Amino acid sequence: MAIKALIFDVFGTLVDWRSSIAHEAKMLLSPLGLSTDWHAFADDWRNEYQPAMEKVRSGQRGFCKLDELHRGNLDIVLERLGWQQVDEATRQQLNLGWHRLDQWAEVQQGLTRLRQQFVLAPCSNGHIGLMVNLARHNHWHWDAITGAEIARDYKPQAIVYQASAAALGFTTEETMMVAAHSDDLVAAARAGLKTAFIARPDEHGPGLGESVAKSPMDYSAADLMDLATQLGCA
Amino acid sequence: MAIKALIFDVFGTLVDWRSSIAHEAKMLLSPLGLSTDWHAFADDWRNEYQPAMEKVRSGQRGFCKLDELHRGNLDIVLERLGWQQVDEATRQQLNLGWHRLDQWAEVQQGLTRLRQQFVLAPCSNGHIGLMVNLARHNHWHWDAITGAEIARDYKPQAIVYQASAAALGFTTEETMMVAAHSDDLVAAARAGLKTAFIARPDEHGPGLGESVAKSPMDYSAADLMDLATQLGCA
Repeated sequence: MAIKALIFDVFGTLVDWRSSIAHEAKMLLSPLGLSTDWHAFADDWRNEYQPAMEKVRSGQRGFCKLDELHRGNLDIVLERLGWQQVDEATRQQLNLGWHRLDQWAEVQQGLTRLRQQFVLAPCSNGHIGLMVNLARHNHWHWDAITGAEIARDYKPQAIVYQASAAALGFTTEETMMVAAHSDDLVAAARAGLKTAFIARPDEHGPGLGESVAKSPMDYSAADLMDLATQLGCA
Repeated sequence: MAIKALIFDVFGTLVDWRSSIAHEAKMLLSPLGLSTDWHAFADDWRNEYQPAMEKVRSGQRGFCKLDELHRGNLDIVLERLGWQQVDEATRQQLNLGWHRLDQWAEVQQGLTRLRQQFVLAPCSNGHIGLMVNLARHNHWHWDAITGAEIARDYKPQAIVYQASAAALGFTTEETMMVAAHSDDLVAAARAGLKTAFIARPDEHGPGLGESVAKSPMDYSAADLMDLATQLGCA
């Protein structure tokens, strides 16, 4: 069955969250006299991401927008660093750094090519408002915003992929998940979707991201431009 | 409080459903030897719209995508005309006519101006997939698709306006509903939103649409270009 829609992981696959958050943290916290390895700060913040979502996925906590999880996780990281003096306004501003993440170099052009042939939507654990802001920041044109908020659960729960395909009006077989993370794609395949792996070898620092998929995928590409070429887009 | 987001009624406000459906019906049904006043056919089909949604709003029927209501309504209209011979494939094709409605002349340019300053989303009773197809057909760039499907209820229920504003990350006061129908706007105002009335005097035939709002609105405009000018958009 022909692929009609592509749905995308965003953090890591389309945007370089690590460099962007390190930059945001440095800009907002160093004027307060604080200093650390800002990339490690970004890693520490991101490391709280899965445990926070797991509480929702397990039913221990109700669904909430990712901003709320990010904010709780930020407070944990600041506490751990002994930086309790960071004021509320700065914390709020820094938390919105996740709405201003910069894309990997080829993304805007790659999405433009892919959109000539496919319906495109993010399928992220980020909520609709965050996705709107990232799209504006990076000049992306989504057809709709799908993902966690419309499913009221977080990836890799099958419902998130399935609800995203259904919202766009396509079957899971007509929909392909595009991501730089094998576990996301394995879960999407289990939910009935096709899969495209995008190499992001530098996501977690130089050479520390996934450069090769850990299991077989329908497509594997060096980046979105390569995927567009493999899919026959002009 | 400043307006940050504009959410739009679509059928009648952005697209001329009556001319488009009359054209689609003529193209698909006249080859079968059928003939009628095709604009009256469009009116008859549209007249079944509110009664069908009322079953959902009243709780008599669960939420479903508008395609399903449109299809049931089409069958009613064909039955009433004694046109039982219309085959299943033609009915399906005609029902998808609602995904190919043509916009009023200034809409694409008006939305482009408004998007320079505001987050834009449809707030229609049409579902996400239908909105995606209308946007592609008419070359619109929405930031997200809000409306009935994310609220799992139909306008004018307050939750549809409120859930749309919340999904975009704005309060109801920061969000303005834009529509050519006073009843839609009165419901939006009751739900806490700001309101902009757009005159569409020909929606139901020449001079038979609303050209003046039936109650006071925050803005009243001749069309989207006029609204963009009133809102200070370049």
